Amino acid sequence: MKPFCFADGKIIATEAAALHPSDLGLIRGYGIFDFFRTVNYQPLFLEDYLDRFIRSAERTYIPLAYNREELRTIIHQLIQKNDLKEGGIRMVLSGGISENHFSPGEGKLFIFAESLSFPSEDKYQNGIKLLSLEYVRPVAEIKTTNYALAVWHSAGWKKQGAEDVLYYQGSYISESSRSNFFIVKNGQLITPDSNILLGITRKNVIELAGGAQIRPVTFQEIRDADEAFITSTTKVILPVTQIDDLKIGTGKPGPVTLGLLERFRAMVSQNTSVNS
Amino acid sequence: MKPFCFADGKIIATEAAALHPSDLGLIRGYGIFDFFRTVNYQPLFLEDYLDRFIRSAERTYIPLAYNREELRTIIHQLIQKNDLKEGGIRMVLSGGISENHFSPGEGKLFIFAESLSFPSEDKYQNGIKLLSLEYVRPVAEIKTTNYALAVWHSAGWKKQGAEDVLYYQGSYISESSRSNFFIVKNGQLITPDSNILLGITRKNVIELAGGAQIRPVTFQEIRDADEAFITSTTKVILPVTQIDDLKIGTGKPGPVTLGLLERFRAMVSQNTSVNS
Repeated sequence: MKPFCFADGKIIATEAAALHPSDLGLIRGYGIFDFFRTVNYQPLFLEDYLDRFIRSAERTYIPLAYNREELRTIIHQLIQKNDLKEGGIRMVLSGGISENHFSPGEGKLFIFAESLSFPSEDKYQNGIKLLSLEYVRPVAEIKTTNYALAVWHSAGWKKQGAEDVLYYQGSYISESSRSNFFIVKNGQLITPDSNILLGITRKNVIELAGGAQIRPVTFQEIRDADEAFITSTTKVILPVTQIDDLKIGTGKPGPVTLGLLERFRAMVSQNTSVNS
Repeated sequence: MKPFCFADGKIIATEAAALHPSDLGLIRGYGIFDFFRTVNYQPLFLEDYLDRFIRSAERTYIPLAYNREELRTIIHQLIQKNDLKEGGIRMVLSGGISENHFSPGEGKLFIFAESLSFPSEDKYQNGIKLLSLEYVRPVAEIKTTNYALAVWHSAGWKKQGAEDVLYYQGSYISESSRSNFFIVKNGQLITPDSNILLGITRKNVIELAGGAQIRPVTFQEIRDADEAFITSTTKVILPVTQIDDLKIGTGKPGPVTLGLLERFRAMVSQNTSVNS
């Protein structure tokens, strides 16, 4: 955590930030958030993230006391105040204090500046393993703070040499716990269309690739895939080479994945190298 | 909320209690809790609740810095300090601060004293309506703070004249969002055995009734049931007379339900009328 955050309507010392523990954000796990990077002091894809955060608040009925302009201003102030050249910004909106301890109240907004830690380079070189887990995140398209099942399961991932999970329901796969999932077949990207968060990195990767098949994806297709990868703000484009005991393609990160990663990184540094 | 709570290792003013908003309890909705009544200054079924709370902490890998003896002492102090003759005690353990914003850290314990509000008497006289909802709470047997889906849905319940939901998966029903569910057929209680929280009121109602069939329960059995009710700390034994458009039995609260409610209330006042 960086020294300054936004809380109670102003920029204050991060260690002084406080949520009342009877807030629904804690007692009912009811809240929304979003998270994006700064690159060379520029918030990456800021308007996309603001779109999603504002929409998440609306769809969860949590009043957000700040409009897009105000959020943008606060974020830029926070980046300056923390000298956050390369880092992460986390916006969190709690469900608020509720008289009946259940119905959403007035949300409390917090914005934190954080250090970023990317996966180690060997994970990009060798790819990672996912564990399949039958689960659909409730209202998956809204970026709620509802990660309890994934946090609970994560204690077991390391023991099984896995980086994360791949959610599925019946024969259809959806997403990883904090990332979107893609396969590559004959040079074509394929990615699930439902029960997923509409990731901003996902969106930009699809654009960069000149499109993708966005449709239901079965487990069988993973068996036949040439490559697979996950996308997220912090993982960027991370090759997936194994799911449970199944090796994907050659078992090594493939050329389409690595080519996209290189182009994505170039695009990011280009977009943020001037005062864009 | 009553004026005093337990936070940061001591009894303090409730309004001064604070959780750091980067705690997993907020940012990942990861935490556990429990809630019980005081009747005539006595915590009702305290040992059952302490059993469950301690087990919830263990099973979610959140370190709890207080043992059973200490929790019991704090609870009794809090009841005295708040003069809580009739009320509720809420224990909450957050997932803690996490370096990677994901793996559980050191949990923060809060214990609140609250006013209780029971359902209005007309709900006991007329019964309530539930809406069916296909959902299984993840790790339902642990009392996590993961209520996001129910809170999200609750905005629509009132409009449909419903009090709460009845979760099901496939043809099997499980529980309501914060209550256990029973049907009565030919004088016999029947209640689901899996995908449920093991409610303390449920347990005591089963004992009081001299047993119940605890097994998978289908939707079809609800159609054929004579009576239905839900149990919880605050709802006690609340008759259910409608699910979606389906009337249960006669459409009125039945004699088994109302008889159990009367006996449960008598047991509670008996158990707590002396220094038990």
